Amino acid sequence: MEKRTEIGILGEFGLIKRISIPFEQHQGWTKLGIGDDAALLDSANQLTISTSELLIEGVHFDLSYTPLQHLGYKIVTVAVSDIAAMNGIPTQLMVNIGLSNRFSVEAVDELYAGIKSACEDYQIDLVGGDTTASPQGLIISVTALGVVDSNQVVTRSKAQPNDVICVSGDFGGALLGLQSLEREKQVFLANPDMQPELDNKSYVVLRQLKPTARFDIIHELREMGVVPTSMIDSSDGLAAEILHLCAASGTGARIFEKNIPIDDETYLAATEFNLSPLTAALNGGEDYELVFTVSQADFEKVEKIADVTAVGYMTNVPKEKVLVMKSDQIVTLTAPGFN
Amino acid sequence: MEKRTEIGILGEFGLIKRISIPFEQHQGWTKLGIGDDAALLDSANQLTISTSELLIEGVHFDLSYTPLQHLGYKIVTVAVSDIAAMNGIPTQLMVNIGLSNRFSVEAVDELYAGIKSACEDYQIDLVGGDTTASPQGLIISVTALGVVDSNQVVTRSKAQPNDVICVSGDFGGALLGLQSLEREKQVFLANPDMQPELDNKSYVVLRQLKPTARFDIIHELREMGVVPTSMIDSSDGLAAEILHLCAASGTGARIFEKNIPIDDETYLAATEFNLSPLTAALNGGEDYELVFTVSQADFEKVEKIADVTAVGYMTNVPKEKVLVMKSDQIVTLTAPGFN
Repeated sequence: MEKRTEIGILGEFGLIKRISIPFEQHQGWTKLGIGDDAALLDSANQLTISTSELLIEGVHFDLSYTPLQHLGYKIVTVAVSDIAAMNGIPTQLMVNIGLSNRFSVEAVDELYAGIKSACEDYQIDLVGGDTTASPQGLIISVTALGVVDSNQVVTRSKAQPNDVICVSGDFGGALLGLQSLEREKQVFLANPDMQPELDNKSYVVLRQLKPTARFDIIHELREMGVVPTSMIDSSDGLAAEILHLCAASGTGARIFEKNIPIDDETYLAATEFNLSPLTAALNGGEDYELVFTVSQADFEKVEKIADVTAVGYMTNVPKEKVLVMKSDQIVTLTAPGFN
Repeated sequence: MEKRTEIGILGEFGLIKRISIPFEQHQGWTKLGIGDDAALLDSANQLTISTSELLIEGVHFDLSYTPLQHLGYKIVTVAVSDIAAMNGIPTQLMVNIGLSNRFSVEAVDELYAGIKSACEDYQIDLVGGDTTASPQGLIISVTALGVVDSNQVVTRSKAQPNDVICVSGDFGGALLGLQSLEREKQVFLANPDMQPELDNKSYVVLRQLKPTARFDIIHELREMGVVPTSMIDSSDGLAAEILHLCAASGTGARIFEKNIPIDDETYLAATEFNLSPLTAALNGGEDYELVFTVSQADFEKVEKIADVTAVGYMTNVPKEKVLVMKSDQIVTLTAPGFN
């Protein structure tokens, strides 16, 4: 049987100590991390970027198919992805968790092993974190800080007509991963002897369970000397993100079905679930890819990045956000939650 | 009947817009607030202070006797109080809320009216905030940022033997306020026709429902040119905070019962509840007063501050943290959660 240590044995102070000890410091400008009233940071003459998320069991994640270690990694990705979307570099992290008595010290260790792995991949420092009781389930709040030079800042609002709309990676995978995991859960609930059938779905399942924030793209853009005119990370699906950029920049957009990158496995899984792969890509969410615009001149450089695709361009007709289908039919681009 | 608007009518984006519109900007260096992927801050050559809290209904607050507007004010106080404890000035705030379907748009408005009132009192900017669904009750995560010059930073760890231990305000009131509110709740549950008897408890009830972070003291210390050698804010009770300072600084402490400031109403309420006023002050928690140490030379200035009291001094015997009773009896200073 696996070891189970009740959290009460360590107490709150003991638990915080246990959590924070394995973390190494990566950023020279973290002046003071966990252990005082607050963290102290010296961002010198750069701008500080700050973003915060609240993630609740049963709303944002399902522990019946999400390993705690993957969850730990993913919550960091979700937070730092917003730093990437400002064209910044992530630097520090604060995590607070609320735990019901269902969770043991070993479960907390698993979660923080994932957080630590992400902190190493993203080279960021855990500088704060409290633990508290929760009447029901696991609750996580995560705050990420980052830095950016003021002349490198990219918001959502500076896209110009004729700018090229670019995306990193591919879309729809995370949604199909979720569908696959949900189906296996239902099969398991109906017959606990059934084994999960996820072997042929490793790509989409990983897209759901362990997404990565695209700092590789941020670094490539910097090396090329390209500053996008607008940028957002894709948490709500490609369509919603393009509509966000248009709304903030006051532009219209024309995107092309044939250019939207969708992985083969996403196609296959979508077909299996009787979903349109295009709808999965446009409205799926949780892909954590970057959606950004660059001037036509800069696009000559950007198109050399292997994992970047041009999906369309901005227009000077703010009212028209359209999708050109493979059939040449033109439809209005819509997303749930937008009116 | 009061107006009740379902949150679904506004949608998530509509709700965030409704929340953020009434907030004014107080800090010139808030470069970008709510509305993009993250906030952008320019702290120039000061250090940034960062702190984060997770507050859960049923664990940290009880809405059966906590007006939402007071709760909104209090969550800001809880967060910025940690900035005061570093001798810093608070500057920005991010608030995420998880809402069960029990909450209407009007309830969210109430909560944010309290947050706005606190932002005005503390002159800080709301720069981030998401809303999400919660399967049960209200969940709030709050992150506060602040600034401090590097030569003004006060941590917990630099107290020296013979430094004077000072406190602001008085202690134990918030606990007695909680006891009073809890008793009225039980009376109300037993007989809903009973009216609450809180008129003679306005002080302790307000200490519980609407505490204030002591930036008045921070500003007075600055005007006097005094930098405390160590400081902490009192969320867990006076005893725990002194033990924290001793543990971080490697000192012992000797404090005197006769010097511990306790309000008359706290005394009366404690007697009514058969509690020792001293125990309420030492272990009560949630007073959000400052506990700090200054050199004997600086104490000559600090004792002129009306609302500051010397309760004892640090010693060079780390093992001995003691309380000298009015009877001259000497007892070990203890706090729940410390071993």
